[in-house]
Amino acid sequence: MITESHIAKFDSISLDGGMTLAPVDVAYETYGELNAARNNAILVLHAFSGDAHAAGEDGWWDSMIGPGKGFDTDKYFVICSNVLGGCRGTSGPGSVNPATGCPYGMSFPPVTIPDMVRLQKMLIDHLGIERLLSVSGGSMGAMQAMQWAVAYPDAVASAIPIAGTARHSPQQIAFNEVGRQAIMADPDWNEGNYYGRRPPARGLSVARMVGHITYMSDASMREKFGRRLRDENQFEVESYLRYRGGQFVDRFDANSYLYITKAMDYFDLTSSGRSLSSAFENVKARFLVISFTSDWLYPSYQSLEVVRALRGRNCNVAYCELPSSYGHDAFLVNVIEQAEVVRGFLASTLREHA
Amino acid sequence: MITESHIAKFDSISLDGGMTLAPVDVAYETYGELNAARNNAILVLHAFSGDAHAAGEDGWWDSMIGPGKGFDTDKYFVICSNVLGGCRGTSGPGSVNPATGCPYGMSFPPVTIPDMVRLQKMLIDHLGIERLLSVSGGSMGAMQAMQWAVAYPDAVASAIPIAGTARHSPQQIAFNEVGRQAIMADPDWNEGNYYGRRPPARGLSVARMVGHITYMSDASMREKFGRRLRDENQFEVESYLRYRGGQFVDRFDANSYLYITKAMDYFDLTSSGRSLSSAFENVKARFLVISFTSDWLYPSYQSLEVVRALRGRNCNVAYCELPSSYGHDAFLVNVIEQAEVVRGFLASTLREHA
Repeated sequence: MITESHIAKFDSISLDGGMTLAPVDVAYETYGELNAARNNAILVLHAFSGDAHAAGEDGWWDSMIGPGKGFDTDKYFVICSNVLGGCRGTSGPGSVNPATGCPYGMSFPPVTIPDMVRLQKMLIDHLGIERLLSVSGGSMGAMQAMQWAVAYPDAVASAIPIAGTARHSPQQIAFNEVGRQAIMADPDWNEGNYYGRRPPARGLSVARMVGHITYMSDASMREKFGRRLRDENQFEVESYLRYRGGQFVDRFDANSYLYITKAMDYFDLTSSGRSLSSAFENVKARFLVISFTSDWLYPSYQSLEVVRALRGRNCNVAYCELPSSYGHDAFLVNVIEQAEVVRGFLASTLREHA
Repeated sequence: MITESHIAKFDSISLDGGMTLAPVDVAYETYGELNAARNNAILVLHAFSGDAHAAGEDGWWDSMIGPGKGFDTDKYFVICSNVLGGCRGTSGPGSVNPATGCPYGMSFPPVTIPDMVRLQKMLIDHLGIERLLSVSGGSMGAMQAMQWAVAYPDAVASAIPIAGTARHSPQQIAFNEVGRQAIMADPDWNEGNYYGRRPPARGLSVARMVGHITYMSDASMREKFGRRLRDENQFEVESYLRYRGGQFVDRFDANSYLYITKAMDYFDLTSSGRSLSSAFENVKARFLVISFTSDWLYPSYQSLEVVRALRGRNCNVAYCELPSSYGHDAFLVNVIEQAEVVRGFLASTLREHA
């Protein structure tokens, strides 16, 4: 598999909030080769804490991207970029503000899911791709996939939103808010000014622990940990969460946590009073919508709401609720059936709609 | 309704961990009157953050306790005490250690659910009651009710565990651990030595926010908050959780949070390798087990496990899964049907088994 890592640099981007960010960098990777017809490109969209490194060793979706896999790099040219507001190469609150020579911190402008997608569109234009064969991602990636189909109807032949929603429920907002409060309660957060000093590691770690619980299912936790004890009479599940929380601090920026979770919470395809169906008014892409039985964070009813709204617009939409005990994590770990339905959907899209 | 508030003082109590706590206070309230036969006493057991003030204004179970209510104080003598390790009048980490003249803090000995119940038994003996008509409570109160029936089979005619479990699942442990880590991450926690100084308010508030999410259901949050915004573009659910988190700080001690959640997590009627059924070997009480359809924190499968084990011992057990959209909070707020089944069960217990 041909893999490339890049940073694209743009002069500026206009944001939903009315501000302009200048300059703006985008970290991205590509896997496979763009064909001569330039109609085999797939943009893969990462979830909240992901990055551009989707495939290869430690790639967050390596189970799905590669030769012969769901996103078959022998056939398709797969692109993945880090989102705007992130901390893995794309401009975010940890980036240096050229006006001050210091990291933006909380002076970084608020970003939205449509802003993230607008920057991805700039990248796709920059790569000389007029129309993507597909846009796909799980969780926050699903939100971006839907936004792509809504905002750039002529630029996407298909969309595969997985384990996502057209808008967060109050429960999803609440879990994000707990994470944000944990970070901001940490004195090391210091109103976001901690670059070059000690980051708010304790707060960020607690935030991540909450996240991990919501990504698993009750059943998968029982299977994985049970009530087994480890050293010092700690439950294994406690050690695991603390370990994962601590690990997260090394690869993620607390301010990015604040910005990106806010973008997710405010995302709402039904905002300004329109119905979800009317939000999909101009959509031309065909859809494959996937959810998982044990995902209680992004339950199937949220995917079904999207499916119904698309059908209400006579859009071409297939829906698969896949059986899994892995909870929300299923889109990352439970990929045998997922890869199969994605493979078939992409093949027919390339054959009939590219 | 005749209401009384008391503190009972005992010389000492032996704890499961091998230590002795001396002296030990128990805050309790009583509602109604003990009859001449002394066979109409009901011990009501509070959940994690409750206290002895169960009935009357702001009583945590006022909807269930009073004249004509589920626990009818015209017929029964209802007792409620604050648990060992608590912070509402019963000895806990905020109590003064007579050996030092300072609050115990983290030098307070670890307590277990059986320890809490042992202290309640001392109180019941002190009140001159040989056999309780019933023991009942929701959540952690349900654990105590089961422990009563197991540890003191001759002292309880019936038990009504509501929305409880015979042992925490890893998911329940995990949510508690997030709360503990949030508290201990707060520098004001200071290894538990904060009495007379600023308490770890930020950590405790975050811990409570997590708790609140788990007490509600996805559906009840959608109904209560939706995606409505308040001042400064904050979601109503965010304001609500922050408000409840902040409020909690005024009435609860962070160290009690640590001790009591640990007691819940370690509680396991199947410990030392015995089956749940064999744990119920000597039980003489009849049981009414109640759970709620939308309770995802203490799901019905946990109550059903208890019911099956009791049936396996030929115990007299009735099970009611009540429909409710209120999640775990249902035992506190959704009480019409709950009051009805409790009322009938208590009447037949008094008639046939007291």
